Amino acid sequence: METSTLSATPQIINKDQLLTHWLGHRKVTRRTLEAFPEKELFEFSIGGMRTFAQLMKEMLAMDSTTAKGLATDAWEALDEEKVELTTKSELLSSWDKSTEEIQQYWKDITMEEFQKKIVAFGQYEGTGYSILFYIIDNEIHHRGQGFVYLRALGITPPNFWEQY
Amino acid sequence: METSTLSATPQIINKDQLLTHWLGHRKVTRRTLEAFPEKELFEFSIGGMRTFAQLMKEMLAMDSTTAKGLATDAWEALDEEKVELTTKSELLSSWDKSTEEIQQYWKDITMEEFQKKIVAFGQYEGTGYSILFYIIDNEIHHRGQGFVYLRALGITPPNFWEQY
Repeated sequence: METSTLSATPQIINKDQLLTHWLGHRKVTRRTLEAFPEKELFEFSIGGMRTFAQLMKEMLAMDSTTAKGLATDAWEALDEEKVELTTKSELLSSWDKSTEEIQQYWKDITMEEFQKKIVAFGQYEGTGYSILFYIIDNEIHHRGQGFVYLRALGITPPNFWEQY
Repeated sequence: METSTLSATPQIINKDQLLTHWLGHRKVTRRTLEAFPEKELFEFSIGGMRTFAQLMKEMLAMDSTTAKGLATDAWEALDEEKVELTTKSELLSSWDKSTEEIQQYWKDITMEEFQKKIVAFGQYEGTGYSILFYIIDNEIHHRGQGFVYLRALGITPPNFWEQY
């Protein structure tokens, strides 16, 4: 048996596919952000919930920080305030910067990291994969809420399935 | 080198972990369904969207059907109507039945299936993992929308992170 055969143990999802999956979701989230009118992005909400700008800031506190943590084992604390982001344009730029950072850090994440026990953001115990899945799921969850905000504002959200 | 070492190629997420991940989300979705008042479950919506009962029926059309498809390569067409489900109790029972079926079918899904090219529900091209991730993501997406409906109704949704 050759090593090449043995190393081909089937992966449920491989590292390239997981990055594509994550970046695909980020494209839909970016389109959701783009669809908001400037004012409503920072002021509109339903039932006492956070505005979509606040939800975006939560995502921005977690995204590249998670990629960096998985790549370097150095976890920064969560900073969801991001007081410097006060316009849609700044949120979009910050999103694009995080996307670039994610792609850079991704190269340095080892396969072993996904099954390693970690303490993310200095406070959440999990394994590499569980933390990463959590923050992708959190993005999907809050973006879904953004879709409702858009519908309530009479705006058609982007297509959920167009993750490219 | 021993085979045992070689076969331990690190998985990003293994099959047991993926099932636990999926079932964990289903627990949160079940709690979300439970939190709805009977009437509003079937009548309330925002911005012309579907009711949460309709969103649940979409999830129920995809969930065990996907597990069965991955296990048997027999894909049923989507049936989102599910006209027989007219009460919260019936939706909860149907959800629990699907959860049991998922666990049964899961045992018969091979590792190779996740990377196999498939045509899910007889119409959607993808790979095993991409279809499964899609339907889990779709559940998270619509459940997040259910959270907004609950908040709009003055009801506190379950905790997103309590996936147990």
